[in-house]
Amino acid sequence: MGKGVHMSQSHTSPFDASDPNLPVILLSHRAPVTFGTNEAGERTINRGAGGIVTALTGLTEQFAETVWVCAADSDEDRVVVEEHDGESFDVAGPHGEQQLHLRMVQIDADVQEKFYGVISNPLLWFIQHGLYGLATAPDLTQRDHDAFVTGYIAANAEFGDAVASEVEKRGGRAIVMLHDYHFYVVASFVRSRCPDVAMSLFVHIPWPGPDNWTVLPPSMRDPIFAGLLANDVVAFHTDRFARNFLLCVQEHLGLQVDWSDMSVVVDGRHVRARSYPISIDVEALRAVAASDAVQAHVDVLTTQYGLPERQLILRVDRTDPSKNIVRGFRAYDRMLELTPELKGKVVFLAMLQPSRQDVSEYADYLQQIGGVVAEVNARHGGDGWQPIDLRLDNDFEFAVGAYRVCDVLLVNALADGMNLVSKEAVVVNERDMVLALSENTGAFAELGEHAVTVYPFDIEQQAHALAEALAMPLAERRAHLREAAGVVVMNDVQQWLSAQLEDLRALRGHGVPRFTP
Amino acid sequence: MGKGVHMSQSHTSPFDASDPNLPVILLSHRAPVTFGTNEAGERTINRGAGGIVTALTGLTEQFAETVWVCAADSDEDRVVVEEHDGESFDVAGPHGEQQLHLRMVQIDADVQEKFYGVISNPLLWFIQHGLYGLATAPDLTQRDHDAFVTGYIAANAEFGDAVASEVEKRGGRAIVMLHDYHFYVVASFVRSRCPDVAMSLFVHIPWPGPDNWTVLPPSMRDPIFAGLLANDVVAFHTDRFARNFLLCVQEHLGLQVDWSDMSVVVDGRHVRARSYPISIDVEALRAVAASDAVQAHVDVLTTQYGLPERQLILRVDRTDPSKNIVRGFRAYDRMLELTPELKGKVVFLAMLQPSRQDVSEYADYLQQIGGVVAEVNARHGGDGWQPIDLRLDNDFEFAVGAYRVCDVLLVNALADGMNLVSKEAVVVNERDMVLALSENTGAFAELGEHAVTVYPFDIEQQAHALAEALAMPLAERRAHLREAAGVVVMNDVQQWLSAQLEDLRALRGHGVPRFTP
Repeated sequence: MGKGVHMSQSHTSPFDASDPNLPVILLSHRAPVTFGTNEAGERTINRGAGGIVTALTGLTEQFAETVWVCAADSDEDRVVVEEHDGESFDVAGPHGEQQLHLRMVQIDADVQEKFYGVISNPLLWFIQHGLYGLATAPDLTQRDHDAFVTGYIAANAEFGDAVASEVEKRGGRAIVMLHDYHFYVVASFVRSRCPDVAMSLFVHIPWPGPDNWTVLPPSMRDPIFAGLLANDVVAFHTDRFARNFLLCVQEHLGLQVDWSDMSVVVDGRHVRARSYPISIDVEALRAVAASDAVQAHVDVLTTQYGLPERQLILRVDRTDPSKNIVRGFRAYDRMLELTPELKGKVVFLAMLQPSRQDVSEYADYLQQIGGVVAEVNARHGGDGWQPIDLRLDNDFEFAVGAYRVCDVLLVNALADGMNLVSKEAVVVNERDMVLALSENTGAFAELGEHAVTVYPFDIEQQAHALAEALAMPLAERRAHLREAAGVVVMNDVQQWLSAQLEDLRALRGHGVPRFTP
Repeated sequence: MGKGVHMSQSHTSPFDASDPNLPVILLSHRAPVTFGTNEAGERTINRGAGGIVTALTGLTEQFAETVWVCAADSDEDRVVVEEHDGESFDVAGPHGEQQLHLRMVQIDADVQEKFYGVISNPLLWFIQHGLYGLATAPDLTQRDHDAFVTGYIAANAEFGDAVASEVEKRGGRAIVMLHDYHFYVVASFVRSRCPDVAMSLFVHIPWPGPDNWTVLPPSMRDPIFAGLLANDVVAFHTDRFARNFLLCVQEHLGLQVDWSDMSVVVDGRHVRARSYPISIDVEALRAVAASDAVQAHVDVLTTQYGLPERQLILRVDRTDPSKNIVRGFRAYDRMLELTPELKGKVVFLAMLQPSRQDVSEYADYLQQIGGVVAEVNARHGGDGWQPIDLRLDNDFEFAVGAYRVCDVLLVNALADGMNLVSKEAVVVNERDMVLALSENTGAFAELGEHAVTVYPFDIEQQAHALAEALAMPLAERRAHLREAAGVVVMNDVQQWLSAQLEDLRALRGHGVPRFTP
């Protein structure tokens, strides 16, 4: 009912967004490729890392025309930007795949440090993952206010300029897809110059409720909310995050939310909060899993750990406090205490990629990880058996090998936007693996019913969950894994993108828009 | 619309709750009086401390019959309990006021420690005030699971028994008013024995949203939610807390919320979430303010600080991390740095009552407070001027004297259910005081528009807010203070209680219940 009322107020666009020939402008901080130089001084092209880039690369094929706007990162990136006068250019993918049309934005180092090193990480990351002990942190000072205005907003304006100028080159008609917490206010700049784009921002990390956002003063949080509302769709991995976002604009901006449609009307525009759970490229991952390199890792792991007589618990994470690594080891410690007959019969392989070691909380956290591993290995190990094998590395093929042969995958994050590790493991595992999954991951909404639930602050419960996972009867394990894999195969990354595009194209294509509920 | 449907399903009661002769059973952890012995070994009666007791004492006059159930605390309390075989008894108030009908419940020391020292404080207090840095705390272990079941639930069962037996003595017809976070599951026990009571629980501290409650596993949070839903009314200080509670039962228990009525139907019973902002006894406070003892404090403060030539900033708090004391001093430090002309012309009097020093976080926090005070006084003080006067004491008459003469009251709590200090100060101040009030206090909903808003994590903003408060023109200060005082006078503690009683009495008194919206 309210829907009709809202629609009649909504902005009417002069173009048909459902046109499949519309160009698509993507924005992400990470680039799909970065440039370097080899020893001979020749330019090299390397594939970009990170979940968003991996998800989007390869999907651009389905667009008639794509421009990918991203940050220049390496020294050679900056040389390339200069060569093109800051404009967009074509580049072949690192493995000779499809041509990419890139626009790299070069930000002044001082602005970049404030934008990225003060506001995006750690401030927004910490707030959105609930990592602050509020009695003592954060202390927002003049440095933060300055960093917000002359770093975050300034950088967003520059990226917004780049996006808007690519839209303008194409006559102001485009679909614009912005990505993640670095760019919450970009849409404000784009909308003011290009009022008729169909635009979304995807938030890839958790979105907490309105109380948690009071960590920021209105001078910071209000521009963030307003910036997001300059999109047509604000997209999240789960319904819970989308609801939290609408509660924020209801409480902090006083907007009236149409809860049946999950939308608000702002300046006559109809803005939707939607959820699209991100996924993986199942086919590509299965190809990697079948490779010789991965098979070699499987062989070594099998021999080294004495599989399958011994059971293997696996975790694969960055060393981020939000991943809850220390409590995971404490739970394993408690499990060995409660179930001493498991000693010698299980190994916990933790493949951890060191992360953000320039941030003190992260450096401290790595110390704690090392400390608890030593403690648990000293307490329970011996006779050639190490209870925990800690590998501080980032080797994707090794991780895929471990996915194939593990008996339990532990994902106990205290907050996680999605968690793709859980989706990767369930589609390549060959040992009827049990997924032990935190209720506070985005993935839980899809995979929770096929997993052993983990409550991330409860060490005792996690100890029991690990023991339960290790002891689960084969038929049950197999049925759960098959169903979990089925969920991921059904909603793969292609589907994730198609659902978003369908919604954006429907925005202005017809008199009556269609949206996924 | 949905309202009618719910009402038709609601429990029908055999009695008329609107009957003004119905007995009222109160439950609070703190007692209105505690017993002791003097040097001659004679029994003494002392008035109980704390906001709830102060609010409820004196209000019992309006009930036809009251039984106040509370915890035995002192050794002499326990002697008194034994003398009455654990049953209720009459006692005169400490100053010879009205007779109180008390029932003190004596809990085994081991149960009490788990109930009070492990679960209520710090676990529930910390979760509800957002004090945990979730990367490292809490670590819930077997000790917490045990303390929840054999401490919190067990103690709630004992208090529930006491309440239920007092109801049964009166034929099962009573109004039951339970208080605060110690007693979230008491109503479950009372409801099972006395299905027909009209019962409420008042939550006096903040109630965070559903994400924040995932700090507890379902084995703890679900009984808490279910226990609260055994009441007819779950009461809070603000609409925001009431909304957060309903979001919790919607998300964690899967109940359908009628948002227009702020209610849910559980087992055929209609349970409402309501807000009643607690207040103070204005007349009694003004009598204290006019006393000779307070006047003597006013005289000393005036002379000592050189008032009113010098301006006085005041805070009155427990040394609880939720009160945000350290950031308040850092903001004052920053204000003196930004506005050096204020040096020597202002004093910050902090009257802080040491709190919970057996809890390590509180002991650490007191250390930090002392540290920052020394730092600020060393940095800015000299020539006989101390920028901060830190008094670690709890002298109500001294505090009231300071309320009368301060120029600015700083209340920058990072989370606070209500904050009565702000309400007390505005009704007795004589200096056209400016209230600098955190947006995260319950009081902000009523007094925020007459205050300078403080954003509790933002030290820079608080520094500017303090300077703005000190420099506010007289006419503006006066108008704001008058309006703030008017709000408190209009909604005093009598009104707070009447509104609750009216709602409870309406529950089953008429075919169509009336509720405050």
